[in-house]
Amino acid sequence: MNSENFRLSEKLVSASYVRQGLDARRGHEQLIRRLLDQGKCPEEGWSESTIELFLNELAVMDSNNFLGNCGVGEREGRVASSLVARRHYRLIHGIGRSGDIAAVQPKAAGSSLLNKITNSVVLDVLKLTGVRSVSSCFVVPMATGMSLTLCFLTLRHRRPKARYILWPRIDQKSCFKSMVTAGFEPVVIENVLEGDELRTNLEEVERKIEEFGAENTLCVHSTTSCFAPRVPDRLEELSVLCAKHDIPHIVNNAYGVQPSKCMHLIQQGARVGRIDAFVQSLDKNFVVPVGGAIIAGFDENFIQEISKIYPGRASASPSLDVLITLLTLGANGYKKLLADRKELYGHLAQELSALAARHGERLLKTPHNPISLAMSLNHLEAHSSSAVTQLGSMLFTRQVSGARVVPLGVQQTVSGHTFSGFMSHSEAYPCPYLNAASAIGITKGDVTVCMKRLGKCLKILKKEKSDPADLEAEDGELEESPQRSTELRV
Amino acid sequence: MNSENFRLSEKLVSASYVRQGLDARRGHEQLIRRLLDQGKCPEEGWSESTIELFLNELAVMDSNNFLGNCGVGEREGRVASSLVARRHYRLIHGIGRSGDIAAVQPKAAGSSLLNKITNSVVLDVLKLTGVRSVSSCFVVPMATGMSLTLCFLTLRHRRPKARYILWPRIDQKSCFKSMVTAGFEPVVIENVLEGDELRTNLEEVERKIEEFGAENTLCVHSTTSCFAPRVPDRLEELSVLCAKHDIPHIVNNAYGVQPSKCMHLIQQGARVGRIDAFVQSLDKNFVVPVGGAIIAGFDENFIQEISKIYPGRASASPSLDVLITLLTLGANGYKKLLADRKELYGHLAQELSALAARHGERLLKTPHNPISLAMSLNHLEAHSSSAVTQLGSMLFTRQVSGARVVPLGVQQTVSGHTFSGFMSHSEAYPCPYLNAASAIGITKGDVTVCMKRLGKCLKILKKEKSDPADLEAEDGELEESPQRSTELRV
Amino acid sequence: MNSENFRLSEKLVSASYVRQGLDARRGHEQLIRRLLDQGKCPEEGWSESTIELFLNELAVMDSNNFLGNCGVGEREGRVASSLVARRHYRLIHGIGRSGDIAAVQPKAAGSSLLNKITNSVVLDVLKLTGVRSVSSCFVVPMATGMSLTLCFLTLRHRRPKARYILWPRIDQKSCFKSMVTAGFEPVVIENVLEGDELRTNLEEVERKIEEFGAENTLCVHSTTSCFAPRVPDRLEELSVLCAKHDIPHIVNNAYGVQPSKCMHLIQQGARVGRIDAFVQSLDKNFVVPVGGAIIAGFDENFIQEISKIYPGRASASPSLDVLITLLTLGANGYKKLLADRKELYGHLAQELSALAARHGERLLKTPHNPISLAMSLNHLEAHSSSAVTQLGSMLFTRQVSGARVVPLGVQQTVSGHTFSGFMSHSEAYPCPYLNAASAIGITKGDVTVCMKRLGKCLKILKKEKSDPADLEAEDGELEESPQRSTELRV
Amino acid sequence: MNSENFRLSEKLVSASYVRQGLDARRGHEQLIRRLLDQGKCPEEGWSESTIELFLNELAVMDSNNFLGNCGVGEREGRVASSLVARRHYRLIHGIGRSGDIAAVQPKAAGSSLLNKITNSVVLDVLKLTGVRSVSSCFVVPMATGMSLTLCFLTLRHRRPKARYILWPRIDQKSCFKSMVTAGFEPVVIENVLEGDELRTNLEEVERKIEEFGAENTLCVHSTTSCFAPRVPDRLEELSVLCAKHDIPHIVNNAYGVQPSKCMHLIQQGARVGRIDAFVQSLDKNFVVPVGGAIIAGFDENFIQEISKIYPGRASASPSLDVLITLLTLGANGYKKLLADRKELYGHLAQELSALAARHGERLLKTPHNPISLAMSLNHLEAHSSSAVTQLGSMLFTRQVSGARVVPLGVQQTVSGHTFSGFMSHSEAYPCPYLNAASAIGITKGDVTVCMKRLGKCLKILKKEKSDPADLEAEDGELEESPQRSTELRV
Repeated sequence: MNSENFRLSEKLVSASYVRQGLDARRGHEQLIRRLLDQGKCPEEGWSESTIELFLNELAVMDSNNFLGNCGVGEREGRVASSLVARRHYRLIHGIGRSGDIAAVQPKAAGSSLLNKITNSVVLDVLKLTGVRSVSSCFVVPMATGMSLTLCFLTLRHRRPKARYILWPRIDQKSCFKSMVTAGFEPVVIENVLEGDELRTNLEEVERKIEEFGAENTLCVHSTTSCFAPRVPDRLEELSVLCAKHDIPHIVNNAYGVQPSKCMHLIQQGARVGRIDAFVQSLDKNFVVPVGGAIIAGFDENFIQEISKIYPGRASASPSLDVLITLLTLGANGYKKLLADRKELYGHLAQELSALAARHGERLLKTPHNPISLAMSLNHLEAHSSSAVTQLGSMLFTRQVSGARVVPLGVQQTVSGHTFSGFMSHSEAYPCPYLNAASAIGITKGDVTVCMKRLGKCLKILKKEKSDPADLEAEDGELEESPQRSTELRV
Repeated sequence: MNSENFRLSEKLVSASYVRQGLDARRGHEQLIRRLLDQGKCPEEGWSESTIELFLNELAVMDSNNFLGNCGVGEREGRVASSLVARRHYRLIHGIGRSGDIAAVQPKAAGSSLLNKITNSVVLDVLKLTGVRSVSSCFVVPMATGMSLTLCFLTLRHRRPKARYILWPRIDQKSCFKSMVTAGFEPVVIENVLEGDELRTNLEEVERKIEEFGAENTLCVHSTTSCFAPRVPDRLEELSVLCAKHDIPHIVNNAYGVQPSKCMHLIQQGARVGRIDAFVQSLDKNFVVPVGGAIIAGFDENFIQEISKIYPGRASASPSLDVLITLLTLGANGYKKLLADRKELYGHLAQELSALAARHGERLLKTPHNPISLAMSLNHLEAHSSSAVTQLGSMLFTRQVSGARVVPLGVQQTVSGHTFSGFMSHSEAYPCPYLNAASAIGITKGDVTVCMKRLGKCLKILKKEKSDPADLEAEDGELEESPQRSTELRV
Repeated sequence: MNSENFRLSEKLVSASYVRQGLDARRGHEQLIRRLLDQGKCPEEGWSESTIELFLNELAVMDSNNFLGNCGVGEREGRVASSLVARRHYRLIHGIGRSGDIAAVQPKAAGSSLLNKITNSVVLDVLKLTGVRSVSSCFVVPMATGMSLTLCFLTLRHRRPKARYILWPRIDQKSCFKSMVTAGFEPVVIENVLEGDELRTNLEEVERKIEEFGAENTLCVHSTTSCFAPRVPDRLEELSVLCAKHDIPHIVNNAYGVQPSKCMHLIQQGARVGRIDAFVQSLDKNFVVPVGGAIIAGFDENFIQEISKIYPGRASASPSLDVLITLLTLGANGYKKLLADRKELYGHLAQELSALAARHGERLLKTPHNPISLAMSLNHLEAHSSSAVTQLGSMLFTRQVSGARVVPLGVQQTVSGHTFSGFMSHSEAYPCPYLNAASAIGITKGDVTVCMKRLGKCLKILKKEKSDPADLEAEDGELEESPQRSTELRV
Repeated sequence: MNSENFRLSEKLVSASYVRQGLDARRGHEQLIRRLLDQGKCPEEGWSESTIELFLNELAVMDSNNFLGNCGVGEREGRVASSLVARRHYRLIHGIGRSGDIAAVQPKAAGSSLLNKITNSVVLDVLKLTGVRSVSSCFVVPMATGMSLTLCFLTLRHRRPKARYILWPRIDQKSCFKSMVTAGFEPVVIENVLEGDELRTNLEEVERKIEEFGAENTLCVHSTTSCFAPRVPDRLEELSVLCAKHDIPHIVNNAYGVQPSKCMHLIQQGARVGRIDAFVQSLDKNFVVPVGGAIIAGFDENFIQEISKIYPGRASASPSLDVLITLLTLGANGYKKLLADRKELYGHLAQELSALAARHGERLLKTPHNPISLAMSLNHLEAHSSSAVTQLGSMLFTRQVSGARVVPLGVQQTVSGHTFSGFMSHSEAYPCPYLNAASAIGITKGDVTVCMKRLGKCLKILKKEKSDPADLEAEDGELEESPQRSTELRV
């Protein structure tokens, strides 16, 4: 309420109480002021009441909420369902204009502010999680893969002759498809085995640059976060290579905002060599629903060029989600989540190692991978050829989600390219294995219950050969619940 | 509640009342059954309580809501903010898999169902609004322009040699950019003036096909809905041409689901010739927030090919919005909105015509355009050269949104191409004009208030030259509000 | 946002758009200003966005939402569940103080404002629905019956010797109990039959006053709204009687705000005689959930005396509901609901009359009852003695709610008093009958479907005697649904 | 969804995923089953998604949500505002019938279940917090004071001759008014000073019984929770006295569910003597909004008698709040809150004692009061006669809520009775003091910030006399915020 309305309130309720209410209101305004002024993620999280106050204020600034508006255009932010209007806080106009997804909309000052502030807050978080010299970023309501495609399409205009993208292999369909969709030919660089780890084959990358010619190469497309035993690419060396050959470098940092290791690699790569853009998932890093990505970089012009290539307005929904989330957590809350994740990574490694030992397996040594772990399944496979895949479906049925079983020798064709040893990032990894990851939001309960269920499954599978009838008997209940609600507690 | 829980309830509340509650529950289940079974938009809209019951049921099927789930993957549908969880009805996993935006996710049976049902219901609505033979469609959480880009990117794999897209000019940046972003060269076909209307130059299209060669032409990219005095492209003839030359045909049907005329053109085009895909905006046709589009077509394989080219999972938010909206409205409610729009189009035309007459202007004759109208601004321009643009900003300040003023002689460069007479779809349209449209959700109040304010502005502008001091005096208040709330009343 | 924050926003979004947002905000503030200033129900309803803005502003003024508050008391407005906090808009402190339910709370300026404004808006609505000279009222979160009890308890302090309450009979338990609970002895005045109508026996009232003595009589407790064939009490005459004998007069106006007739009776009664307080239900008159009542009167001191007798703070929930509802509807929307109700009363009477004729029954002539109607069930009873009660349960099973079947000769003891002919307001009403009412929010669909189902039931019951096997066959489905959602459309 | 709908879903989404969804649903159903079957507070709290699923299921059972319902009654659960409908989960019919607030409503099986289950869960919590032999209770949507009034009104029917209520003094207006409102004459029993504590004067109680006669005494009205230095009444001895003289005994247990000490007193009192009913606040004990109370006792018949005396239906809102809250917390969560409170009581005592020492004051020794503490203000008063009250308003302005300053010699007249030394429960307490309490939901931050601000205020007040100009300079900011949101974190 404005000061006149506060004054009027004093006729109804004693002035000193109203004045205290006015003071209290100023507290909220003060938080909003700091956000608008500095464009940074607040140290301490906001209460839901400040957040909703702020979102309501933004909504009021959009023309679809003007009390006196009359609309005779083809796009007026009308909404037929009040359920829908409410769930978007009546912010209906999306973000961007036809010319630029980061542009301001005349009809929607509130949504435009939302967009600007979100990008600014996210930029701040990228800085404080390790990429200190990042200069620009924007949230785009598309998958990480499609966002990579957008980067490649932008580069095409800079390098009209280029046809190839050099890509250290990572076995995730959308990574590969992001290049094919953009109309380029991926050049797959097989990884090299160092100990248990699969790492970037730098020599092969350089060989390919020479083979195809730098001018025919659109870019190097590297990856940080990935499933063990693959580890983040050697970003520093790749960045140096790219700088040397004047080839753009796009980094898929899918869920790499979580571990400082990945962010550090990007910061270093950009410092010593060349990184044009790095792309990360919103949902995997910021505990929000699937649907957005962040495209970030060190050259504001290039990032703007990407934002300008998106034709049309876009959904504000992912931006809204990440803004609400970061305001709720605050920088401290977010850092706490990251610290918890790191600690539980250690715990998971320990538990998995112990369990592996009990079953004659071992935890693969992949110290360069800060998120994902892998446990060998040699004995299980020796026991029965189908047991490895069976383990996967048993875990699924027992509501262990995210544990990924990788058998040997899978062949898969993606967009015309055939991968041997698919899922394992390698044509011939030495052993089958199981992946488990410690990602943001994981709880100790998740680890405990997972270990318990995994242990049971392994027992059953080994017994089964001798006496399959036991399988059902021993099994069953999901008595232990590791979590109580969708929402995390911070 | 299941039957056991109903039975237990009878211990607390008399059995006959509980039984009636059980009956009532069956009523809701019955509606859901019909939806799942037939995959059609229900005739009558559902109550909010049925809709929320249904969405809650879907959410319960997703692994992030399993009470006993333990997650050790990198993507577990965790959410840090309860505000965010709630606004998505706890449906967190998005839609699609890395391989296909229309695919089913093992971790998220509920979200997968949501996706399938939404696409099915939307397909039903496309049929009943006029494209009876459409065979497949999917909702994609991207702007219409970006969705067109996706179509072009898909076609590239079918026509690797093609470089050109033939495009009857329409002055909207995102249309042009959709082609450039995909990496193609748009061949602009200037429109021809027939009476007041700007129409497709069919001869020029054919000439260009011959000039560039069919095999070098990716496709024809035509448009239905547009600002008057441009009118929908001659789809039938274009479709025949495409069939004859074996060239794909992609139709931008941005807000063309609303008027039966546009849908009829598509149906006819597909019947007599070739249309590979038609793309429409979710927000402009289905009164939902900005953020999604529908890609539809007549060949299921091709539409699937497009859905498979999107790399990654995507936001379920636009799908959720359109599903809620269509279930709320029902087929009858939606048709009612369309009928109202049509009626108000007539009303707007009449009012605008009368107002034009009072100010020495005239309503341009554009009978082929079923949504947008244009009123000449000849006298205004004669009065003062700057008056036309001034009118635009006056309307903006007076909260008339969507009324678009088009002066003569604007030059604009978009992605390297320079357009003369930009905004008017023509290098030299005979007169400046003002656009107003009757789009879905418009009310009689919108028309009345718009006419009133427009009339005032015109008066002020004419007086101004003689006595500029009057400008502020006569002006001011926004006393009349045509609408009360964001939500439409159906 | 305050002006400083708007100014800061101009750094992010162009100044002219922000200024328009600021203007738009002023529109909402203006509505709030008028409400605070005049304390009246706005003519036109507010949008949900204005309402929520306003409620959020109120919440911010309560100490439990102060960002810097520290609480070391025993009542700090803490809430353990966010679901609960949200559904109350974070207004947690309730209304009133231990000394007075209408008093202002130092800890909760916002909740106090809510309370004051609600009472003021409700007072305005009572005036404009017909009791023009009402001077004071307050919402109390108790049933109508319990609110009447509160009135009687207040009167006790004024009339310490009084033991009796004179009460023209109306057969609703809570009316009778309201007196017994307060510790008084109800003196039941049987109604007199005039035509089909049951009306106040004025002579008997006066006789009883003389019998018991005015000083021993706490008050006359009369009733307006009631089930036909009883009609509203002769308020004018009763009021004159009360004035003459100096006896307080409390009117149970349960759902009498809806028909102007009841409100007129109260206005007239107060003008020509004496009415101390009139009590009405919130839910029955204002389409809100069950739980509150309004105590109103013409002498501010007496109404305040009642409000001061409630010991403790009370739930703000009913006040919140009625405020939201009246702001949503506006005076015009509320009057429209009343007008619709009146029109449908005529329609219901017509339909019921026609149906009665078809089944050899008749609509009782009760022109003084503006809400409830009664149709005789003579033939049905003649047909089978149990048929009348059976009809009741058949209607219940067929989801006809509110149709009330009244057989003859029911005896019922309430709080020690035995009523003959219970439910019929009379010891010996001439015929059994069925009640139907046209209450606020009723739709034409309700009437149509009710008539259809009632007709079917009557047919089945008559056939049944001859061939009971048909009963189930003919019956069944609830195919027609008169309403789509809980919410009314205004 | 029912099994048929799950089966239909398998046509859209692969059967194994759907089956897992079905399993997951069963998990929620299982929790509901246990609740319905046992009627107990679940050990572990439920997720919001289970709670909302459950509430939606209840709502579906109420006739206002029947899809095929047609309503022709005067009370049909219609709601004009969708905001209102949603915030009540569409449970509109309230609780109880005109005859009994605990009765089942035919029109509202869902609301009736809600009512029954809430009362059952609350009873369970009363047992597990210490009153193990409680046999019956119900939630009533009225203040604690008004609920006490209801108890007294019920007793009147059992003891028609009785006029007096014996009441060990406690200085809270609503306690005193609860008796006056019911029409009885409170007999104030002054407390006796034992050390610093004010305790029940048992001899005086017995003397008064003899003076007035047991048959003229309605009941003894004792109190547990209260502000120090008063302590809970000697319940055991009072209960024995009541049993001996055959006088009913009503206990005001306002916020006494929190400390096991108060609950233990009640359990003991009932075991060795007589307690007819004990009444507690919902908001003060269960961290819900103001508005309800629980009336509980050991004789089911008497509790039922009270529930039957409430005339009319009542708001379900307080029941809904407490049910949601207890299901969210679970028994363990609630016990955790109580344990935290107890621990912080110790902390607060320590801090307050230390602070007192620094300012020449002392913490009063009140070991029998488990919630409230008192610190003497002797020096402050000596310093300046007005300083004590000034301290109160300074704390208020500094957003320290709940800290209560008690000066000496206040006279106050409540409902005609004049209390000397009002607020201090005593005609002449030896010193002025300040109260602070450790109530449920208090945080360590509350204590820390309170101590800091209190310290500052005391400093300022002492300095002030010598140099009043410093007052404003030293003061000001509310930089430290002890809490972030309305919601507690459990």
